[in-house]
Amino acid sequence: MPSGKKQPKNPLQSPQNEVITEFTSSLPFDRELYFWDIVGSLAHVDALAEAGIVTQKEQKSLKSGLKSVLKSIQEGEAELLLELEDIHMNVESLLSEEIGALAGKLHTGRSRNDQGALDLRLYVRERVLETLEELMEFQKVLIRIAKKNLGTIMPGMTHLQPAQPVSLAHHLMAYWFKMKRDFDRLVGCYERLNFCPLGSGALSGSSYGIDRFELAKSLNFRGPTDNSMDSVSDRDFAVESVFCLSLIMEHLSSLAEEIILWNSPQFGFIHLSPDFTTGSSMMPQKRNPDIAELTRGKVGRVAGDLVSLLTVFKGLPLTYNRDLQEDKEPVFDAFDTAVDSLWAMRNLLSTAKFDSIRMEEACKSSNLHATDLADYLVGMGMPFREAYSLVKKMIEDSSGSGSSIDEWTIKDFQKYSTLFKDDVKGYLELKNVMNRREVYGGTSEKSVGESISLVDALAKEESSVIRKIRDDVEKPVLQLLR
Amino acid sequence: MPSGKKQPKNPLQSPQNEVITEFTSSLPFDRELYFWDIVGSLAHVDALAEAGIVTQKEQKSLKSGLKSVLKSIQEGEAELLLELEDIHMNVESLLSEEIGALAGKLHTGRSRNDQGALDLRLYVRERVLETLEELMEFQKVLIRIAKKNLGTIMPGMTHLQPAQPVSLAHHLMAYWFKMKRDFDRLVGCYERLNFCPLGSGALSGSSYGIDRFELAKSLNFRGPTDNSMDSVSDRDFAVESVFCLSLIMEHLSSLAEEIILWNSPQFGFIHLSPDFTTGSSMMPQKRNPDIAELTRGKVGRVAGDLVSLLTVFKGLPLTYNRDLQEDKEPVFDAFDTAVDSLWAMRNLLSTAKFDSIRMEEACKSSNLHATDLADYLVGMGMPFREAYSLVKKMIEDSSGSGSSIDEWTIKDFQKYSTLFKDDVKGYLELKNVMNRREVYGGTSEKSVGESISLVDALAKEESSVIRKIRDDVEKPVLQLLR
Amino acid sequence: MPSGKKQPKNPLQSPQNEVITEFTSSLPFDRELYFWDIVGSLAHVDALAEAGIVTQKEQKSLKSGLKSVLKSIQEGEAELLLELEDIHMNVESLLSEEIGALAGKLHTGRSRNDQGALDLRLYVRERVLETLEELMEFQKVLIRIAKKNLGTIMPGMTHLQPAQPVSLAHHLMAYWFKMKRDFDRLVGCYERLNFCPLGSGALSGSSYGIDRFELAKSLNFRGPTDNSMDSVSDRDFAVESVFCLSLIMEHLSSLAEEIILWNSPQFGFIHLSPDFTTGSSMMPQKRNPDIAELTRGKVGRVAGDLVSLLTVFKGLPLTYNRDLQEDKEPVFDAFDTAVDSLWAMRNLLSTAKFDSIRMEEACKSSNLHATDLADYLVGMGMPFREAYSLVKKMIEDSSGSGSSIDEWTIKDFQKYSTLFKDDVKGYLELKNVMNRREVYGGTSEKSVGESISLVDALAKEESSVIRKIRDDVEKPVLQLLR
Amino acid sequence: MPSGKKQPKNPLQSPQNEVITEFTSSLPFDRELYFWDIVGSLAHVDALAEAGIVTQKEQKSLKSGLKSVLKSIQEGEAELLLELEDIHMNVESLLSEEIGALAGKLHTGRSRNDQGALDLRLYVRERVLETLEELMEFQKVLIRIAKKNLGTIMPGMTHLQPAQPVSLAHHLMAYWFKMKRDFDRLVGCYERLNFCPLGSGALSGSSYGIDRFELAKSLNFRGPTDNSMDSVSDRDFAVESVFCLSLIMEHLSSLAEEIILWNSPQFGFIHLSPDFTTGSSMMPQKRNPDIAELTRGKVGRVAGDLVSLLTVFKGLPLTYNRDLQEDKEPVFDAFDTAVDSLWAMRNLLSTAKFDSIRMEEACKSSNLHATDLADYLVGMGMPFREAYSLVKKMIEDSSGSGSSIDEWTIKDFQKYSTLFKDDVKGYLELKNVMNRREVYGGTSEKSVGESISLVDALAKEESSVIRKIRDDVEKPVLQLLR
Repeated sequence: MPSGKKQPKNPLQSPQNEVITEFTSSLPFDRELYFWDIVGSLAHVDALAEAGIVTQKEQKSLKSGLKSVLKSIQEGEAELLLELEDIHMNVESLLSEEIGALAGKLHTGRSRNDQGALDLRLYVRERVLETLEELMEFQKVLIRIAKKNLGTIMPGMTHLQPAQPVSLAHHLMAYWFKMKRDFDRLVGCYERLNFCPLGSGALSGSSYGIDRFELAKSLNFRGPTDNSMDSVSDRDFAVESVFCLSLIMEHLSSLAEEIILWNSPQFGFIHLSPDFTTGSSMMPQKRNPDIAELTRGKVGRVAGDLVSLLTVFKGLPLTYNRDLQEDKEPVFDAFDTAVDSLWAMRNLLSTAKFDSIRMEEACKSSNLHATDLADYLVGMGMPFREAYSLVKKMIEDSSGSGSSIDEWTIKDFQKYSTLFKDDVKGYLELKNVMNRREVYGGTSEKSVGESISLVDALAKEESSVIRKIRDDVEKPVLQLLR
Repeated sequence: MPSGKKQPKNPLQSPQNEVITEFTSSLPFDRELYFWDIVGSLAHVDALAEAGIVTQKEQKSLKSGLKSVLKSIQEGEAELLLELEDIHMNVESLLSEEIGALAGKLHTGRSRNDQGALDLRLYVRERVLETLEELMEFQKVLIRIAKKNLGTIMPGMTHLQPAQPVSLAHHLMAYWFKMKRDFDRLVGCYERLNFCPLGSGALSGSSYGIDRFELAKSLNFRGPTDNSMDSVSDRDFAVESVFCLSLIMEHLSSLAEEIILWNSPQFGFIHLSPDFTTGSSMMPQKRNPDIAELTRGKVGRVAGDLVSLLTVFKGLPLTYNRDLQEDKEPVFDAFDTAVDSLWAMRNLLSTAKFDSIRMEEACKSSNLHATDLADYLVGMGMPFREAYSLVKKMIEDSSGSGSSIDEWTIKDFQKYSTLFKDDVKGYLELKNVMNRREVYGGTSEKSVGESISLVDALAKEESSVIRKIRDDVEKPVLQLLR
Repeated sequence: MPSGKKQPKNPLQSPQNEVITEFTSSLPFDRELYFWDIVGSLAHVDALAEAGIVTQKEQKSLKSGLKSVLKSIQEGEAELLLELEDIHMNVESLLSEEIGALAGKLHTGRSRNDQGALDLRLYVRERVLETLEELMEFQKVLIRIAKKNLGTIMPGMTHLQPAQPVSLAHHLMAYWFKMKRDFDRLVGCYERLNFCPLGSGALSGSSYGIDRFELAKSLNFRGPTDNSMDSVSDRDFAVESVFCLSLIMEHLSSLAEEIILWNSPQFGFIHLSPDFTTGSSMMPQKRNPDIAELTRGKVGRVAGDLVSLLTVFKGLPLTYNRDLQEDKEPVFDAFDTAVDSLWAMRNLLSTAKFDSIRMEEACKSSNLHATDLADYLVGMGMPFREAYSLVKKMIEDSSGSGSSIDEWTIKDFQKYSTLFKDDVKGYLELKNVMNRREVYGGTSEKSVGESISLVDALAKEESSVIRKIRDDVEKPVLQLLR
Repeated sequence: MPSGKKQPKNPLQSPQNEVITEFTSSLPFDRELYFWDIVGSLAHVDALAEAGIVTQKEQKSLKSGLKSVLKSIQEGEAELLLELEDIHMNVESLLSEEIGALAGKLHTGRSRNDQGALDLRLYVRERVLETLEELMEFQKVLIRIAKKNLGTIMPGMTHLQPAQPVSLAHHLMAYWFKMKRDFDRLVGCYERLNFCPLGSGALSGSSYGIDRFELAKSLNFRGPTDNSMDSVSDRDFAVESVFCLSLIMEHLSSLAEEIILWNSPQFGFIHLSPDFTTGSSMMPQKRNPDIAELTRGKVGRVAGDLVSLLTVFKGLPLTYNRDLQEDKEPVFDAFDTAVDSLWAMRNLLSTAKFDSIRMEEACKSSNLHATDLADYLVGMGMPFREAYSLVKKMIEDSSGSGSSIDEWTIKDFQKYSTLFKDDVKGYLELKNVMNRREVYGGTSEKSVGESISLVDALAKEESSVIRKIRDDVEKPVLQLLR
């Protein structure tokens, strides 16, 4: 017996067919596509009319029927039936309830193979837009915090060891640039997917003289796809979009890890808003960074979704194979996960408070000026490797004797090398150390300030890309549902 | 804005908290655990009573309250609230509606950390049982078909090239043995997971003097887990069970591939029942092997579930981290997928008809006796490599001249070697070729017959394992719900 | 004891340190980067000179020393030592053998963190170029075969069932367009990675006043990276390039599956060149499509490489962590695999012969004109769903009575509907069926012809992209090694 | 052009064949199997003699020839040729150099399909043994440290927040039990793989009357495999062993994460031996936990290996397909990685020093007695949920007023509830809190002490399992090479 969730619905069917219906039906998940399925059908009807396959009167009737079906699904009145296998057949069946036999003409010159490919592309277009918007909102929060924290010093870490002082602004802006790549990568994916497969038929192309260029245009696609056999077998856009999301999740997982660390009493760099932490059922003193932990965990979901898709598509011969039905859930899940995680982490960050005192304290007594001590010597003419060895010795002596280098006098320094001059003490002050990284992309207040200006310009470009894609997604809807 | 599916439910909450609730709540999936959560609580109440923490009266009241809650959930009357975060808190809240403040005692000496670990183990125990049963049913179908087809000859393939004749029985029994390993592997997993984590508390062990051995016994576990910090962080059993399922799916994907091939007109080895094929919306002549294709595709789901889990658990410090909430959905999905796929493929196979004529035809003219021709010569004293070269030449000459070796006279043979005697023609008959593989595990009717006898004995062992596990799963339920 | 491969090399080290050296050293794989490491160092020396950190004389001496080191490695004379941990330290050590203490200045203002990031980017740039070239060569073979086979008819398949007739040209061009996306995707990856991380120091930026824009330019990067903390932690380009390769492998795995099928006697559509098949050690009659099978299998390698990288990067805090050392081998392996597979499959295809007779035969008796029969009726005014049902009945009757529809008279047709006219017989001829798919992207000779013209133009664009990238990769080498 | 590494070796071959040889040859990796290939052949020769297929004299000659070949490979004298495709053909070719035409008899009744399956099983048997030994060594180190630290208190963490005090012993013993499952899981895998496929021929079984039971026994297998078609297609043991290794790596990655945290100055719980940390090329003050980071990263390798295998095997029809050649490298790599990582982490741990002062300090001021405060009240009769709320308030008041609960007088307590008595202060002392977890598996010194006793007994069982497997692996070698 299959898993308990199965319940017969149609008394005329044999029990076996029941379960088979459940096993094969894609309705439980592809119902999410109903809106785009109907929008696609509206465009198809126009193309059929254009080609003279349906009359103007039929066109009108088909379109108003489709709109009624849309309304009845949106309002929860339409009953979608598992037995009808998928969302396409359900819509057609509802349409024939509305307008009778004429509904039969809707599927002319079209197959579920090109129709299904279309629906998923329309869906992904919309979700890409949503993700880009979320990325941009996140970047805004990062800039906002960065602008206030150009001079807030914290230990920059390598190997989870304090290494060199950096500003909180610089640290957070690292994520800004990671998200910029996420943004661009997703736009690249969008550009590759923004073609219309409709008219490819089952696999060899429609024979009804449909103008695929016009059809593509009516849905704001850049054009029709170029080869019908490719069109009905291609799911590159599904895998690629999930891959883009998996990298977004990787970036969020790093940020989440940092927030979990910073939120531990051992670090104490951050205070999360109570809205974004939870307590323990047993230990009332706890304030757990659950949002960050869940986000870190959810990278696994999207990696899993990606592997699912890569596994499904392996070794499939052309063209459509039913295996491809397994393309949808991973895509839906990955978008849900990434969009929600971006939203949650953005708000977590936006409502958090940073503890600049704890951060600065963590810089001290960690010899974060060690590199600079070597650089100082190099500046005075010593080869780097020699300077490096000397500084290593100084640090060992310092921790051996328990006297912090910060407290050394100039004489203490000169015991090691006469290259040390009076200015060495000021040279080693944390703020000076930080601000000496004036190179492009460095952590100095000046560099980060410049970086933020640059980023303001890049943000404008992002906005205009989003506007363009929003047009692609929304305009056909306005036009076709008019 | 997060994905559209979110809708406020409690007007008193701020919109932000709404979405955070949705992001963090595990109720949408862990509600699947309600039954086992309550069973676990019933056992916990007994343990509390045993330890003198609740009185006998309280015990009675708590247990009858829990049973009412169970009933109200089962009958769909209880309202489970997202805001209460998870199934545990929902059950406790419903309990307090039933019995008032006393409900507060239920959580004594327990944490959601050990409780959640318990629930998932109870769940996996049951699903393992279900999967084992499905495997055994599948094996029965294989034996049934095999018994009828000891002498049905088909081309055994390597590299998708006909290689040597085998019986359909032998071919299908290969899957029997693959499933035997699947069975044993899952039983091994079961044995490792069949320990009770309750009493581990949040992480360091309960301080309430609960007898964990008795508690484990009351739920038919083999014993308590051995280390509380391990107990609340361990999800090995989740990953291991999903891995076992992923191998089951791999085996099914191979069988599915073969059925898809056999069902193509090019092979024509099998006729699937119309109940297990579907038509095309555009091409009425098609009979598509959708069940097999979907099953082949679904191997991707389970591989993805496995990767999800492995990714989630990577690099987590002890003990409980909220990332672990991501442990459930992949497990649920993998069991659903494997159990349903086993069911569907079993019925597909069980209702299919094999075309023994097409299978035998495919053996002919493919020189499937080539190995035996070489063996014949080896039997007459020629070294194998030499015989191999000679046979290669004979085959090339045969296909060059268009005269099939089957039609050669004994003289034709002797042109190549005088080692050929009159008996060579009979030696090369397909049935004889097949039946010469008399070695243990070979394809001869004798060997396969023996194999089936062996397998009947192994099936009895499987039955008794299943009975034992069924006891573990069902007895505590009977006892605690009495 | 660790795996047997370990053997002490330096008698002064304790055994333990030996093995630790082996465990931590990246030399066994990052030695592949020696060329780019030295090229990067040459550019760095120029930047140091520009910034006045080394004198012109020192610059000259450092550069000629580096070129000597390069030569001695290329000629196999230099001994690279495991104990020196990685390729960077080895090069520096060899340099100091060449030019003495001055070598110590090479590392000024640089860390292994930005240096390692640079080397890998330079490596990936070159391998991307190589992959793009392979993709284009493959596409050329596809076009060449397609041009000769516009009229070669074969059964277009869905669900591995013959569905509609298509041309071999159309079928192969589907892969052309898949590879076009592979090409563009990889170019997008290239554009995102083509920035120079050097000058980012250990994590917070160099303090030596290096002009990062000039430095980037000298290596033909589009510019410097924008944030030093991002620069030393970012491995997006590694994962993204491996992802692009994994999709290439997916496409090849589909083609490989088809070739394996076509090469089976059951299909018999293709004859592979003996150079690209292998025999069996036991069955001399076999001609196995090993190249295609291996390619299909190798998709697993690259999927595995991708998962490795995604797993490694999960949850790493900023900035550099030693985990990142695990970034290289998957990248190397994925490029090796994809480039070799493209090469092998291209040559396999290029030397294969197609059996147009077997392909056309496979179209007959499969009712591949069923869709058109329905279309015919639709053209006469019948709604699609009604026509579909009628055709289904006709096909059932035909196979029931054993009389092929191809042999029906016009009267036979008219028994089903008077809409059938005399022209129906011609309408159903395979070539006509195929050529009616005149829609853009369809399988008609006209459409595919147009498609090939389009593709010739796209190929020119590809060439010019490759030329541009070749400049990026090669020009700095010519300049710096001058 | 394929990747640069290719270089022609045999001037008689055309360039194309060269590269094809490289693409298809498995020699570069399967040479690792030479030892087991020859051992397997020695057993096969005995079986041939037993069956009367070779004479006693031939047997003697074949065996001494094989031993010479073994010796010449071991001593690096034999030249293995890529053109001979794999290790099997190379051994046979070397053998014929030794003993001439008689070598041709070696392959009688055997195919590379069953031979290759045998070799990999023999290899995995040995590596499983090695891994089990490493696991046991690791467990010994854990026990050794635990025994000394029953009373060493540290903060037990959930959500990386201090939650309850635990002993270092208890914490480390959690890993002991994780490794126990790893041990048992691998033994289960071993039991399933310990069957001999030899005699299965190419796919349908040998026709030479070989006694497969005797043959299996001579190699200390439990018996022969049961179905020849399963035998040559089955790679379950490869995937399963890699899965077991991936869980070992998951456990190590958690421990690695903890060590990285503990080694940060923020935690400061551990001091790693300088032998197991490395410095920075730029920051001389750093002591980086590279071994732990690399181990954490290497979990990605093994996860990748697992995905590779699962992908390769998806959808393969029976029986042998060349895709299966991709089975070896992931297996080799996974064993190398896991064995080396176990070794490295064991020694890292074994040479580390724990800072009990820092650990105890971290417990204080974190209100780790909060649960117990609630338990105290519950003990006095208050329902748990009510006690929980009251304690939460006490903690909030305490941190609000800046007065630690540790410093409260009994009167301060009684302001909240008159249930508090004089004994509450002692009740809350860290050691008492810890030692109250006396439940089985809890953190009290008593419980952990018991646990260690139990574990000593389990370790004996492990030893005896290892002894048994060592016999399986080593005895046939001694016998056959005698």
